[in-house]
Amino acid sequence: MELDINALRTEYEEFASRGMKLDMSRGKPSKEQLDTMERLLTAVTCNADCISENGVDCRNYGGLDGIDEAKRLFASMLGLTMPEIIVGGNSSLNLMYDTVARAMSHGVVDGMKPWAKYDKVSFLCPVPGYDRHFAICEYFNINMINVPMTSEGPDMDIVERLVAEDETIKGIWCTPKYSNPTGITYSDDTVRRFASMKTAAADFRVFWDNAYVWHDLTEHPDYLLEVLNEAKKYGTEDRFFIFASTSKITFPGAGISCIASSSANVKRILRELSVQTIGHDKINQLRHARVFRTFDDIKEQMAVHLNLIRPKFKLVRRYFRTELSGIPGVSWTRPNGGYFITLYTPKHTAKRIVALAADAGLKLTPAGATHPYGVNPDDDVIRIAPTYPPLDELERALPLLCCCIKLACAEKQSSLID
Amino acid sequence: MELDINALRTEYEEFASRGMKLDMSRGKPSKEQLDTMERLLTAVTCNADCISENGVDCRNYGGLDGIDEAKRLFASMLGLTMPEIIVGGNSSLNLMYDTVARAMSHGVVDGMKPWAKYDKVSFLCPVPGYDRHFAICEYFNINMINVPMTSEGPDMDIVERLVAEDETIKGIWCTPKYSNPTGITYSDDTVRRFASMKTAAADFRVFWDNAYVWHDLTEHPDYLLEVLNEAKKYGTEDRFFIFASTSKITFPGAGISCIASSSANVKRILRELSVQTIGHDKINQLRHARVFRTFDDIKEQMAVHLNLIRPKFKLVRRYFRTELSGIPGVSWTRPNGGYFITLYTPKHTAKRIVALAADAGLKLTPAGATHPYGVNPDDDVIRIAPTYPPLDELERALPLLCCCIKLACAEKQSSLID
Repeated sequence: MELDINALRTEYEEFASRGMKLDMSRGKPSKEQLDTMERLLTAVTCNADCISENGVDCRNYGGLDGIDEAKRLFASMLGLTMPEIIVGGNSSLNLMYDTVARAMSHGVVDGMKPWAKYDKVSFLCPVPGYDRHFAICEYFNINMINVPMTSEGPDMDIVERLVAEDETIKGIWCTPKYSNPTGITYSDDTVRRFASMKTAAADFRVFWDNAYVWHDLTEHPDYLLEVLNEAKKYGTEDRFFIFASTSKITFPGAGISCIASSSANVKRILRELSVQTIGHDKINQLRHARVFRTFDDIKEQMAVHLNLIRPKFKLVRRYFRTELSGIPGVSWTRPNGGYFITLYTPKHTAKRIVALAADAGLKLTPAGATHPYGVNPDDDVIRIAPTYPPLDELERALPLLCCCIKLACAEKQSSLID
Repeated sequence: MELDINALRTEYEEFASRGMKLDMSRGKPSKEQLDTMERLLTAVTCNADCISENGVDCRNYGGLDGIDEAKRLFASMLGLTMPEIIVGGNSSLNLMYDTVARAMSHGVVDGMKPWAKYDKVSFLCPVPGYDRHFAICEYFNINMINVPMTSEGPDMDIVERLVAEDETIKGIWCTPKYSNPTGITYSDDTVRRFASMKTAAADFRVFWDNAYVWHDLTEHPDYLLEVLNEAKKYGTEDRFFIFASTSKITFPGAGISCIASSSANVKRILRELSVQTIGHDKINQLRHARVFRTFDDIKEQMAVHLNLIRPKFKLVRRYFRTELSGIPGVSWTRPNGGYFITLYTPKHTAKRIVALAADAGLKLTPAGATHPYGVNPDDDVIRIAPTYPPLDELERALPLLCCCIKLACAEKQSSLID
């Protein structure tokens, strides 16, 4: 496709002069999505409501592992059993941070060193990936090694080779379903290779962030093989820390979360957690368990979300198809679920596109955020987050976004000709 | 007072044969206390309720430092200003744990070493004190040094001498008001000495757990001088991490908490906290701020608690006065607030008393829990927690408790004679 740089400059200046203020930077649910969960606010309204099915007074102290009905909810969501679940507070990110923090200070296997006592600790980071995962590694001075994503998940040839030969590699970040930001779901083969692979480090752990486990965007959603049960076939179930939450099912700020793992790990985590807290908010666990009495109730809620989110993804794809088809180096993902579309741009244009958009009033996720240390060496990936703005705002943002992409591509083409 | 060991043995056997099951082990609010906060459950019941005074949608992500109305609430409770407050989740213990964990992995002063990189890190632990404070130190392998409590707080002559000469001492645990378990409130002089004292370690920190700041048991409550404002007079405001919560004002399992400190510390904590979570539960912050619109609302609620708790404390003291007066080595505290009475017993009898009580069906806080590593060298302190059992249960527990105390004392007297 021929790009007319002068026409694009004029078009861009026209957008910039409008003084727009639009935000497509984060994977946040929209107000309309949140409005569909009003019933959560009245799920527990009197003293008598506060007693769990086992007679626990959820107002008082205790219940480090969570109440049974909340465990059952997460177990059904993840295809696991209740004893494999510890219910947390409002943030699964916090559970991930805590798990890494404990691994650093105390290790993950009885009798083995705390990770902080090793000269070097490395994590594999499939890219593009999630900036908040990378931020945890950076904070704890964990060396991050990029691993490319394929259409079936991380490139397992590379993962298997690296973990087999390098004992400094203690972990890997995974978003196995509707991966942030590619939207890819790991294939059965990928899951099985994670369960069966040999690792040089006996204390290697997979951080399996199942954030989007039921976040479908079509009636023919992806299927993810459950990893802990696969791992049991190989005796590697201690390898997996599984995380999930209701952040994008109910309220991002006031949902509930869980960590799931082998019985040995659950026992160890509870022993350590007992030093940290007397227990998480059990009344909020009750609210969730009362609203979602069965897994079908969750699926019903996600169908409501689907109807609100799908039009936004369709709109983005329509604009991209109409405006960007045929531009060399430009492509984008078509996920069946999750919160993101990944836009691939020509090398060394992503930062320029994000800057152009920002200057014209459209905030995007920073280019580079998809990579460890905020550095994408090829500068060719932008995470598109369509869920938060209302449709009409998106309708105003997308022409500008497409203009920025085309202008940056035109600039690059002209610089190559110069 | 003459103790007849044979009569006491008979009396004890009679108690033991009743098969009682009573629990005075933890500082938990009773069901009746919790029942007085039912209105918290309906403080936020519809979507429109979820918007904070500044227009923040509390259902969604964000708000790492908490919403303004919750900050204002804690600021008024603590005599501080809103920018000095970070609102947390349901557990101030978790904030304390996190603060120690971050100090271990990253230090507390820019440019200084993480505590874990020192050969030795020590904390001063006023005794008797709170077992969960000590558990955090033990978990992080922090060496604990006992400091005796006086009627004005920790023995400041000892504290000042130790922190001035020993640079391995990086912290001290304080429960400055209605101290757990002595019920002592630090005198103005003690507070000022904490603010003004010289420390060998530049990264020394005071963990000021103001758990019982408004938990009065009389109409003439203790007064605690606010420490951060005192510290500003000496330029030592970075020394103090202040913690508080509504755990014993609303619901222990579903309240809100805060950490307060100097502006430099607040800035540093928020920078680190941003790696750990996107934000704590803001809807629960809203619930609390809506129920307690002014500080007077808090005081009103505490007056309701006072009416429920004071009869229990009075009952314990009546039994102790009647049954234990005149026994050599036996005494107890008469706190103006808080959740505990400290019972002092003759040397090497506390464990025996707790064991006798347990065997007869009355669970007490383990003897030794009031000291680091669970070891009280003199074995002469028992923490009495009267709040949880209903009055009629307490009425059944106290005769047994007094019998166990007298029997252990009689056993000791007879062993000395033998």
